[in-house]
Amino acid sequence: MTQETAAFQGERGAFSEEAARRLLGRRVRVLPCQRFEDVFRSLAEKRVQAAVVPIENTLAGSVHENYDHLLNHELPIVAETSVRIVHNLIGPPGVPFRKIRRVFSHPVALNQCLKFFAANKGVERVSFYDTAGSVKMIMEERLQDAAGIASALAAENYGGKILKRSIEDDRQNFTRFFLLRRPEFARKFPVKTNSHTRWKTSLVFTTRNVPGALFRSLSAFALRDLSLTKIESRPLRGKPWEYLFYLDFLGHVDDKVSQKALGHLQEVADFWRVLGCYPRGD
Amino acid sequence: MTQETAAFQGERGAFSEEAARRLLGRRVRVLPCQRFEDVFRSLAEKRVQAAVVPIENTLAGSVHENYDHLLNHELPIVAETSVRIVHNLIGPPGVPFRKIRRVFSHPVALNQCLKFFAANKGVERVSFYDTAGSVKMIMEERLQDAAGIASALAAENYGGKILKRSIEDDRQNFTRFFLLRRPEFARKFPVKTNSHTRWKTSLVFTTRNVPGALFRSLSAFALRDLSLTKIESRPLRGKPWEYLFYLDFLGHVDDKVSQKALGHLQEVADFWRVLGCYPRGD
Repeated sequence: MTQETAAFQGERGAFSEEAARRLLGRRVRVLPCQRFEDVFRSLAEKRVQAAVVPIENTLAGSVHENYDHLLNHELPIVAETSVRIVHNLIGPPGVPFRKIRRVFSHPVALNQCLKFFAANKGVERVSFYDTAGSVKMIMEERLQDAAGIASALAAENYGGKILKRSIEDDRQNFTRFFLLRRPEFARKFPVKTNSHTRWKTSLVFTTRNVPGALFRSLSAFALRDLSLTKIESRPLRGKPWEYLFYLDFLGHVDDKVSQKALGHLQEVADFWRVLGCYPRGD
Repeated sequence: MTQETAAFQGERGAFSEEAARRLLGRRVRVLPCQRFEDVFRSLAEKRVQAAVVPIENTLAGSVHENYDHLLNHELPIVAETSVRIVHNLIGPPGVPFRKIRRVFSHPVALNQCLKFFAANKGVERVSFYDTAGSVKMIMEERLQDAAGIASALAAENYGGKILKRSIEDDRQNFTRFFLLRRPEFARKFPVKTNSHTRWKTSLVFTTRNVPGALFRSLSAFALRDLSLTKIESRPLRGKPWEYLFYLDFLGHVDDKVSQKALGHLQEVADFWRVLGCYPRGD
């Protein structure tokens, strides 16, 4: 795992970088990208060896855009992890909390810390393009009355000081991330596992507009006692009454029972593809 | 429908206001709220007669927070509509496009217009807390070198001029909105319909952690030829292996077959609740 680089979307210190560290170790090198599309391309074009992308959040739902990229690029999922979104108030070292007049962050993060702002009326909220980017800017501009809201990793990256920890309103805010590799790497360097490893398989499929089509598709798994951990429908735009389904089940894709289930699914689905098979995260 | 007021989240001219106009007519009065929680409370506490909330977006997925509010408040869904998210470049009247040096908007909107910024390198992107709010600010501050990115309704509301229409990268960007009422109103003033009206019913249910529990729940609908238009699982945090499901099916909740299906669901689900029954939107 030495000296490999992982691409992610956002600035250094983003929650995606925290996920990358969990998945690949604290010393992983990273390539921050502006857009998710750039993350997938960097991996497909071999500029990096791995990519880390968010796939769903407990408050905001599935990131459909990344499911689209997973379908457009053949980059298998090889691991998953879940990161709790903890927002910290981060200022320049030496500036005490009482001097803070302006707080910069991404509007979504600002809106997830409304109790903090209600309790600190004298502090102005200022929208910024990125959470970690707000800390970067405050440190670079040496602002003496400002703080950012971002991850602890952003404070570490830019030398900021955490003035208040965990100021988010809702602690049940988790994002699930996927680790992606190129297919040949995934085959050559399989994930280290032992006999206790429990596997999960993610797939996408479509069904025709027939009543009960989804039910018949799910029967492929239910009749074989395979547990689903995710099912989600997504209407296909421009194709009324056709749906794309995201499905995760517990089991290795090469297990005999999984192969039987996928063979059965093939009979009832128009299209299906396995996006990856990986050890179940914590 | 005269003189009723609808609450929504965001500034005047937000896409939610556009949805409110579609659902309640162009002359509807509106109450902009800071948070979704405030929208639900305004309706529950009778400060308004209706509420309009986004429930899912084709790129960003379901808005779980609003499903949570639907479960916490008994405010039935009485209608649905889908709004295409069209981003326009809006400046003060009299300022030509070539004078624009800064473009303000919510970072999510800025990121959905990357082709525009790639083609206009001299224009700086500036993050702002709200799309419509950026147009409001530019008009109030009388900025002569700035524009905002927002809906056409925002231009209309604040007297801005649309300099470029539809600058979003992806036209397949739709948000589905629900119209909510208080239960007594929904009963007293049912939606006007005719014999051609097709109904949709939305419900939420949970199942125990038993393999095939979801399959058995769906059988309640499939065995009666009821078509599903949405199914989504959401893990219950703090309750590993328990799931909440969102399900929409075609049919009126009072139809005999729907009642049979819900009776059957009751046998296999731990908990279930109908969130509303409403005419199917376009």
